[in-house]
Amino acid sequence: MYRLVKIKSQITGNVSGNVTEALHGVNNVTIKDIAKACGVGVSTVSRVLNNKPDVSDAVRKKVLEFVEKSGYIPNNSARDLVKSSSDSVGVIVRGMGNLFFSSILKTVSTEIDKSGYTMVVHFIDSGEDEVKAGAVLEREKKLRGLIFLGGRYDYSPEELSLIGIPYVCCSYSNSFGTLNEGDYSSVSVDDYITAYKAVKQLIDLGHRKIAALVPACCDRSVSQLRFNGYKAALKDGGIPYDEKLVMQTGGHYGMNEAYEGTKLLLERDVPFTALFTVSDSTAIAAMKALEDNGRTVPNDCSVIAIDGLNISQYVSPTLTTMVQPADEMGRECVKILVDILEGRGNNRHIRLEAVLREGGSVKSI
Amino acid sequence: MYRLVKIKSQITGNVSGNVTEALHGVNNVTIKDIAKACGVGVSTVSRVLNNKPDVSDAVRKKVLEFVEKSGYIPNNSARDLVKSSSDSVGVIVRGMGNLFFSSILKTVSTEIDKSGYTMVVHFIDSGEDEVKAGAVLEREKKLRGLIFLGGRYDYSPEELSLIGIPYVCCSYSNSFGTLNEGDYSSVSVDDYITAYKAVKQLIDLGHRKIAALVPACCDRSVSQLRFNGYKAALKDGGIPYDEKLVMQTGGHYGMNEAYEGTKLLLERDVPFTALFTVSDSTAIAAMKALEDNGRTVPNDCSVIAIDGLNISQYVSPTLTTMVQPADEMGRECVKILVDILEGRGNNRHIRLEAVLREGGSVKSI
Repeated sequence: MYRLVKIKSQITGNVSGNVTEALHGVNNVTIKDIAKACGVGVSTVSRVLNNKPDVSDAVRKKVLEFVEKSGYIPNNSARDLVKSSSDSVGVIVRGMGNLFFSSILKTVSTEIDKSGYTMVVHFIDSGEDEVKAGAVLEREKKLRGLIFLGGRYDYSPEELSLIGIPYVCCSYSNSFGTLNEGDYSSVSVDDYITAYKAVKQLIDLGHRKIAALVPACCDRSVSQLRFNGYKAALKDGGIPYDEKLVMQTGGHYGMNEAYEGTKLLLERDVPFTALFTVSDSTAIAAMKALEDNGRTVPNDCSVIAIDGLNISQYVSPTLTTMVQPADEMGRECVKILVDILEGRGNNRHIRLEAVLREGGSVKSI
Repeated sequence: MYRLVKIKSQITGNVSGNVTEALHGVNNVTIKDIAKACGVGVSTVSRVLNNKPDVSDAVRKKVLEFVEKSGYIPNNSARDLVKSSSDSVGVIVRGMGNLFFSSILKTVSTEIDKSGYTMVVHFIDSGEDEVKAGAVLEREKKLRGLIFLGGRYDYSPEELSLIGIPYVCCSYSNSFGTLNEGDYSSVSVDDYITAYKAVKQLIDLGHRKIAALVPACCDRSVSQLRFNGYKAALKDGGIPYDEKLVMQTGGHYGMNEAYEGTKLLLERDVPFTALFTVSDSTAIAAMKALEDNGRTVPNDCSVIAIDGLNISQYVSPTLTTMVQPADEMGRECVKILVDILEGRGNNRHIRLEAVLREGGSVKSI
């Protein structure tokens, strides 16, 4: 049950008075006590606690067992005594109710912890300005770096000059913007291709009347890219685009808006055999609206989405969806940022692949 | 779109050199510039930014409009220059995949922000030790206070002596423990009564063969209390307790464990017409397992839960559940903690009420 907290490499060798004091655990066990009890040097204990190499397995085991037994709590703030700047990394979560972001946030938190930094998280609504929120947080909390969990795709260099620290766009890129590639980092799937693949899956199964439920067609953001992927798949499949099959939900990603949007789509009385949605949660709400209005999924209407939430495997029918690699996305974002902060790398851009997870919400016709 | 960030009352009247510098916005607008432009004193601007009374509506409006226009970003870290301790409040989230906690966390985050503190969040698995995690975080991040989002119900004073700062148990209490009421705070629903009401609802609708899907019967925690509520409702309804109708999922709250547990329950071949579960997410997984094994909900089996997640309104059938007031819970936790930190109150305990939200997963027989 003991959770070892990494102490950064600054604490090695000659542990001075102040640092030793900061290392006092709750039971007043110090790093010196551990060294003495285990019959090794302070620097060896430090190497073990820092998870560094060049310590024999036997010594490592001995030290960790003593640490576990002693109730010693390693104290990262010892590092603060030898560091002038803060160790905080900010995370701006854009979209309070976004279940996909909730799942990434846990990975991001764990990875930031492991890297020895402090995560400061700030939630904003999907309509709010993440850049401004990030700039405020940067100054308030003296951040070292920022991760934007969701945001707009059309940043300009002028706008982003508000941010004076390295930042990573998590789950999105700058497709509609003018940032220089070298000035920011991103980890994302290709929204256009992912949507294209989802809709192509429907076409391959015989569907030709394919509706789309999207927050907005022209938001210069995730929704527009996915909508464009939808249109491109139709075109390549030789299916004429019909705007009456497209329902926009006023820029909203909420389940309530998706439910109402699907109802409105049905009221148009333009027949469709399949529905493409931009996210799992809106798909779940859409399935509910279809069922509530007398259409069974997938017999009367197939539904496909993008995200791959855990809960989507437990709705009825199981949602067929393009799974974004959420954990990998979170891990890569933190890795890029920490590499930059510690001088091991520059800004970079990672494209991950979304993979189809077949459920029961799509059938061939 | 401008989000006003509260500056604490330390920054009033005579703004000294350092503080003024810290108050520089990104456009180098200072609090003095705002005062000059609006023709008021620096202390008046400070009162407006601090949301303090004794400023006329007209002046308040004028200042806020200028602030909005100027791109000025108030800087909470100015406060840090006049304060020696940190302004961090830790939140330990116990249960990485707990959707109920995800929704409370957003409220807690927003309220901590509003109160002018910094939230440091740390996620642990539901099997991990939140007290130890809290003690580590307290020392690492020099916390002022702690909120435990989920935890055990059987703390002893000795164990909690690890925590040297005020803390609030969010969503749980100390029913099986020995803490003195005055030594900690809590905001929770009565788990026993909430479960009792859920099961009574089933009994009132004619059910007598009522199964229970619980993480554990005797975990000295939330699951045990809710299980006890289940048993008490059966007893008061004159229904003999049958342990063959109870499925424990090895202490786990995960959807996969709930799904597998429900399958095992069905394999026992002991008939039941209703199922009580301790959470919405386990109920959703249970409904899936029932459907996958040829039982329709609610025709063959009613399902009732506790939580009240938003998504539970969009599954098919809509989940009938006891709604915990998540937002109020989060708000009250932060209020209690901030009151203590600012000398306005002592430890206290708040009981909130869970209210039945009828869906389509329960029917009378």
